[in-house]
Amino acid sequence: MNLKQLSELLGLSQTTISRAINGYPEVNEETRQRVLKAAQETGYRPNRAAQRLATGKAGSIGLVMPTAPGHYSDVHFGEFQSGLAEEALRHDFHFVIMPSHPRDEEQAIRWLVASGSVDGYYLAYMRERDPRIAMAKSLAIPFIVHGRSFGLETDYPYLDVDNEGAFRDAARLLLQLGHRRFALLNGPEDLDFALRRKLGTIAALQEKGLTLAPSHIRHSVMTDEFGYRGMAELLQLPERPTAVLCASTVLALGAVRAINKAGLKLGEDISLIAHDDVLPLLKPENFTVPLTTTRSSLRAAGIRIAQRLIAAINRIEQQPPEHELWTADLVIRASTGPAPQ
Amino acid sequence: MNLKQLSELLGLSQTTISRAINGYPEVNEETRQRVLKAAQETGYRPNRAAQRLATGKAGSIGLVMPTAPGHYSDVHFGEFQSGLAEEALRHDFHFVIMPSHPRDEEQAIRWLVASGSVDGYYLAYMRERDPRIAMAKSLAIPFIVHGRSFGLETDYPYLDVDNEGAFRDAARLLLQLGHRRFALLNGPEDLDFALRRKLGTIAALQEKGLTLAPSHIRHSVMTDEFGYRGMAELLQLPERPTAVLCASTVLALGAVRAINKAGLKLGEDISLIAHDDVLPLLKPENFTVPLTTTRSSLRAAGIRIAQRLIAAINRIEQQPPEHELWTADLVIRASTGPAPQ
Repeated sequence: MNLKQLSELLGLSQTTISRAINGYPEVNEETRQRVLKAAQETGYRPNRAAQRLATGKAGSIGLVMPTAPGHYSDVHFGEFQSGLAEEALRHDFHFVIMPSHPRDEEQAIRWLVASGSVDGYYLAYMRERDPRIAMAKSLAIPFIVHGRSFGLETDYPYLDVDNEGAFRDAARLLLQLGHRRFALLNGPEDLDFALRRKLGTIAALQEKGLTLAPSHIRHSVMTDEFGYRGMAELLQLPERPTAVLCASTVLALGAVRAINKAGLKLGEDISLIAHDDVLPLLKPENFTVPLTTTRSSLRAAGIRIAQRLIAAINRIEQQPPEHELWTADLVIRASTGPAPQ
Repeated sequence: MNLKQLSELLGLSQTTISRAINGYPEVNEETRQRVLKAAQETGYRPNRAAQRLATGKAGSIGLVMPTAPGHYSDVHFGEFQSGLAEEALRHDFHFVIMPSHPRDEEQAIRWLVASGSVDGYYLAYMRERDPRIAMAKSLAIPFIVHGRSFGLETDYPYLDVDNEGAFRDAARLLLQLGHRRFALLNGPEDLDFALRRKLGTIAALQEKGLTLAPSHIRHSVMTDEFGYRGMAELLQLPERPTAVLCASTVLALGAVRAINKAGLKLGEDISLIAHDDVLPLLKPENFTVPLTTTRSSLRAAGIRIAQRLIAAINRIEQQPPEHELWTADLVIRASTGPAPQ
């Protein structure tokens, strides 16, 4: 069954059928239901080229992939993309991915938009006062920000996790358990999420008149090795921390190894809370000492970003910027306990 | 500096400049060097739209991303893609990614090719007698296979790791160390690489008159959790293995935890060799007992696939299929030792 045959069967134009299937408001609900029913019964799947002609849309979402020789592949990026792909598949959307050196990202986005090959795009790996947001607002097609940019007014559409709140709550729990010496194994220093997690930690400590010394903060890409190195360094400090916040379960993997190697007991000598992006490759509940975490699914964020972007693409009128801030769950397991006496 | 200005500066047509930069044979070497020198000195970067007009190419590589609700994101896929992106960036290529349910991959490739949005594509996640290869050969644009398809004649261009040889050599080493009871923690059963690793293991055992019982083979997606579960089950068997081959360092992570939990010593009570794709998030040398591995970089494979694909795209005449089979390094560390007496 192709579009022409379905058109003849229903006595509707091909354009009407395409628009009905794509949820355009010009088609009334009764007609839309009739078309969807017939499409289902006859096994009709829209031909993408015809669909593109009928709607004037490319059926695609653009994104920039930061890359460079020696640039680490990012397991978090892959997990987010898998959620995006799950939702894109439902709407028959594809991706156009522009690899770009991190310093050339603006140029890469301009190209994506100018090429006409994408209907919308999202921005990720946001930094403080990120210039890409002003640029995106000046361009003609829908966009959404995954994360936010510290220091800018939030007059752009975004989806973010409340990173500040998550780490503030995690630090508060550790304070309630009597901990006073804190450390933070954080993500790359220039990224917005890492800045907010640091600010949340500092805010909780300030409530108790405590500070977080720069020597007790480590910034790195989030791999097992950097988790190990960072924790090993922290354990050498004269003011050895008893409470550690950690920006990823992947960092925590190395951090826990350093703790074990030093002969310390996790959850007794040292408490640790990691942020859990719900990566399928590594579950915090399966660690030998299950990890207490701040949990927010990256895959769910990918699904939601795709939903909102595709909705924005398919709408005729402009929508006001939508702000969505997800609260992370603080999930208590065995890696946290009372401060050692 | 734009193309028009560079054209005026050099007294050459815009088409000639584009073709020189893209390495087309119609432009002689002397002119090409002159153009490249001027481009470098003036900081000219080709405008992609102009480039596309001049060359008739989209400047893009297509790929299909298997996806479905609940489908695991694949850290190995991300690492391969990061290599591909590094090389694509050098040639100013981008990607068009089609998410697809695994059962609809052929349709997804047909769409990619028909859309005109890609100049070439690669096939991954190959299965036994994979129907995508015959289809790809029937389509008009260059493709390359990452992996191979068992049971088919290899008259298609591919890049693969010698998975059979790698696991045969790994099993032989363990046999030399006196091991007789083997097990295999393998990847998904329907994938070609997993089949070949199984065959390599079986071949080595057969040389010594030994067999690999189906009860001692586990197939799963390659996450920490499945590594743990698989190993925990193997350790319950009446004929408990003393030698385990493992298809990924991510599986090994869970497997090692199960070994520790059972109170067994890795490298003494039980020896383990894992395949190491050189994932930045997890290094085998950093395990508490460093892992013996069969090593082959997935990122390097991504770079090489992009090189070959872009070369095929930029050539005018057809090349014969190229076969490239990489040998994995067998790297000995502490997780292997003599069979317990």
